[in-house]
Amino acid sequence: MSQPLHAIQQVLDFIVEIEKLKDVHRKTRPVGLERFENSAEHSWHVCLSALMLHPYADKPVNIDRVIKMLLIHDLGEIDAGDTIIYASETPENKQAEEQGVKRLLALLPSSVAEGYLALWQEFEAGDSDDARFARAIDRVPPLLHNLNGDGHSWRKHDVSKEMVLRVNSRIGEGVPALWQLLQRQLDQAEQDGLLRSEQSRSHE
Amino acid sequence: MSQPLHAIQQVLDFIVEIEKLKDVHRKTRPVGLERFENSAEHSWHVCLSALMLHPYADKPVNIDRVIKMLLIHDLGEIDAGDTIIYASETPENKQAEEQGVKRLLALLPSSVAEGYLALWQEFEAGDSDDARFARAIDRVPPLLHNLNGDGHSWRKHDVSKEMVLRVNSRIGEGVPALWQLLQRQLDQAEQDGLLRSEQSRSHE
Repeated sequence: MSQPLHAIQQVLDFIVEIEKLKDVHRKTRPVGLERFENSAEHSWHVCLSALMLHPYADKPVNIDRVIKMLLIHDLGEIDAGDTIIYASETPENKQAEEQGVKRLLALLPSSVAEGYLALWQEFEAGDSDDARFARAIDRVPPLLHNLNGDGHSWRKHDVSKEMVLRVNSRIGEGVPALWQLLQRQLDQAEQDGLLRSEQSRSHE
Repeated sequence: MSQPLHAIQQVLDFIVEIEKLKDVHRKTRPVGLERFENSAEHSWHVCLSALMLHPYADKPVNIDRVIKMLLIHDLGEIDAGDTIIYASETPENKQAEEQGVKRLLALLPSSVAEGYLALWQEFEAGDSDDARFARAIDRVPPLLHNLNGDGHSWRKHDVSKEMVLRVNSRIGEGVPALWQLLQRQLDQAEQDGLLRSEQSRSHE
């Protein structure tokens, strides 16, 4: 096989392998659906969310880099699985994800793997403006799932409002106005009984 | 609500509404899965496929525009539904999709809707280099599903090799070397009995 055909075959092998992300199940249900979300459709959803929300980012971001980051941000879950964000993000799990990303990228022509690994690591580190924004947006759809879906994963996993505020405060680091708006909706969710505060729980 | 908060709420409404794409079912099954693919996870898959295949495009493309095009290319299916590519793409269906895209974009702040509608229309027209490439890539995953999945949708819908070649020849317009490679695999699929030629069918 000639060089370009060989490289293209490598990309096709990658395309088939990453399809496994469609079988990694998350902890929330898309609004209106009874089944759990998978990480592939989530990845599409956060890319389009980022595209539409980037005008409101705290710092200017390169939306094209952000979208590439979000397209690959969950690939590590193919080998490591999805974990609920309210459990600690353990170093072991992060390491398993990085190994998984490396395994997948190694399927590609060698000239490209390094750049995408660096982009994945940048997302994980969350230190750049692009990564901070991407990590903020990554948290938005699961919140909307709960806010518009009777708080189903909050109730199932006994998550308090304080935990929701703590874990999702990174939304405020990326898009302060968005976090302001969502905090109001979380207040309303508490009033509507979708979400308990730790204080009210201690009285029961 | 202040102006930015009002605009952000509009974007959140859009984000929740487009989630319905996760419930639009396509005609092929992801490799290794028993269920049909949905158009949201397909959209993620084609974006990442385009990102990795664009170095092999026939003409230079703006991959950032292509990815945006592919993120939104199936939104019209939320109202119009998915149709098998081997059925004719009727003007009625295309019109229903365009109406659907307009309905969704109208949820967004008015300043952005027009640009995305133009990008969606560019994809549909397929006349620009970016659109030609995007439309080529859009056809790749369903072919891989059949090639790696016992030709399931070909057999179910009685699709002949000649139909596969005709309907997917646009892959060759966007990425000639990729089409060359896939045609070899289609030859092999015919030899393996996953795909029948019209000629062989007429003898049965």
